Amino acid sequence: MRHKLLLLTSNNERYRELLSSCHLPEIVLLGDETSNILEANIWLAEPALAAPLLPHAKNLTWMQSTIAGVDALVKPRQRKDYQLTNVRGVFGPLMSEYLFGYLLAHQREHQKYKNQQAEKIWLPGNFKTLQGQNLLLLGTGNIAKHLAKTAKHFGMNVTGINRGAKPTQGFDKVDTLANISHHLTQADAVASILPSTSQTRGSLNAELLSLMKPGAIFFNLGRGDVLDLDALYMQLTKNNDQHAILDVFNQEPLPKEHPIWTLDNVIITPHIAAPSFPEQVVEIFSNNYHKLLQGEQLSHEVNFARGY
Amino acid sequence: MRHKLLLLTSNNERYRELLSSCHLPEIVLLGDETSNILEANIWLAEPALAAPLLPHAKNLTWMQSTIAGVDALVKPRQRKDYQLTNVRGVFGPLMSEYLFGYLLAHQREHQKYKNQQAEKIWLPGNFKTLQGQNLLLLGTGNIAKHLAKTAKHFGMNVTGINRGAKPTQGFDKVDTLANISHHLTQADAVASILPSTSQTRGSLNAELLSLMKPGAIFFNLGRGDVLDLDALYMQLTKNNDQHAILDVFNQEPLPKEHPIWTLDNVIITPHIAAPSFPEQVVEIFSNNYHKLLQGEQLSHEVNFARGY
Repeated sequence: MRHKLLLLTSNNERYRELLSSCHLPEIVLLGDETSNILEANIWLAEPALAAPLLPHAKNLTWMQSTIAGVDALVKPRQRKDYQLTNVRGVFGPLMSEYLFGYLLAHQREHQKYKNQQAEKIWLPGNFKTLQGQNLLLLGTGNIAKHLAKTAKHFGMNVTGINRGAKPTQGFDKVDTLANISHHLTQADAVASILPSTSQTRGSLNAELLSLMKPGAIFFNLGRGDVLDLDALYMQLTKNNDQHAILDVFNQEPLPKEHPIWTLDNVIITPHIAAPSFPEQVVEIFSNNYHKLLQGEQLSHEVNFARGY
Repeated sequence: MRHKLLLLTSNNERYRELLSSCHLPEIVLLGDETSNILEANIWLAEPALAAPLLPHAKNLTWMQSTIAGVDALVKPRQRKDYQLTNVRGVFGPLMSEYLFGYLLAHQREHQKYKNQQAEKIWLPGNFKTLQGQNLLLLGTGNIAKHLAKTAKHFGMNVTGINRGAKPTQGFDKVDTLANISHHLTQADAVASILPSTSQTRGSLNAELLSLMKPGAIFFNLGRGDVLDLDALYMQLTKNNDQHAILDVFNQEPLPKEHPIWTLDNVIITPHIAAPSFPEQVVEIFSNNYHKLLQGEQLSHEVNFARGY
């Protein structure tokens, strides 16, 4: 066998099961013993589990991440002498279900009508539609492109933010993070799908958040550390007509002490917007493994310098 | 002035304001006095308000309904000696916001995560996606076509039910109401957008409802009397893994005595899924009025025999 594969996931059993039904020639799947860290040349791994073990991984040449967020692996002093690939392209539809589920629940006032039902009150109210509203997407990658497509289907105007303001199909406008202020003041809904990089970390700070317009709704769907959570807490305490839907946090689980848990205008979910399904990860791994055998370039390669 | 227009809506003031800014030659807008019922040849009216006054409307030649549902005007013994038009084509996007807002809230378990947040519990759960689920749409008209489009965007399989099982763009399959049983047993979500006609009234009865599969979610978005509400109540009492989202009722407001108000697996909203905005109604009226002046055929004409 030319290749030795190590699993480092919170669900190794499921991965073993799925890998056993794949055609993967010239590979042996190692057991979970610590000693195998030295031996394996390929890792199928969750970044947070893999990061502390990297110094011991003498033979590692390729790591397939089971998730999109690889920031635990691209820090300045970490090893960059192996090939790192992540999973992409499968999260857009799930993220759309999450974002538009919560956005529609908000705009179409699910909670108000639920409260009325509890009192048997029949009272049609004023009415907001997504049609003609402005959505600001921070990020214009695969996930953001899918979100933009859903937003256009619902008749929204969509502005995207990326590094070079490069025109991106499916967006009405694209601009840079440096010019975000203008767009924030116009947006009815703002969603961050930004990766965690040296440029994005902490970029959604008190000053930017204060530019959101009355009644705006903010989503954090990318990485937790892009947002200053305490600043958001202050912003939403002062502006209870603004709302936030948060799925990712700098520290997960979000500590019970954080006061944002209890704000009425905040919804907190436990990083469930777009889970990686092992089935999809194994499919991506298997495709990449066959490319490796053929000497082809792997898909979804992470650029260590860029950080995603 | 050749034409005399009477308003019969619950919001005449708003309609007066909007009409005053339209270019409508050769028409006089009458006041709201009862005596004007005799004089007017054109009515812009809500069917439920217009129906009891029809016998007195000596000069009526054309009525523009402000809503889609005209069943109050097409009953067997009612006058059919005038031209009746309704509003169409504007409800699809609003209905999609309603249906997919509640469908996503259900599948992505908004209530469960809200309850967890109240206890500061961080617990990702199992996960359902709309992708690959089956949506059964009762009706294949303009609204259903738009719902089908949204459903396809979310990766669902869409079956439509119409009178002749005539193939309809945007649906994966189309069949007749007579063959509904088979499709009901397969559907993860069922939505009725049926008009109220002699064939559809009461058609969603205990027998059909009992065919819904475990965990299915049922929407009534069309007309209330298509559904046997007491049968649905019994069905959902016995099967608490099934859910219903109800926006229209045979009697509106839904009487406070009806036990369905209090079922945990039912959401009741006060006929708000797709309201007619006076702006849209006036635009349709104005277009039709210009067609009338030109001697052209009016848009959205109701067929009294068919009932919609």
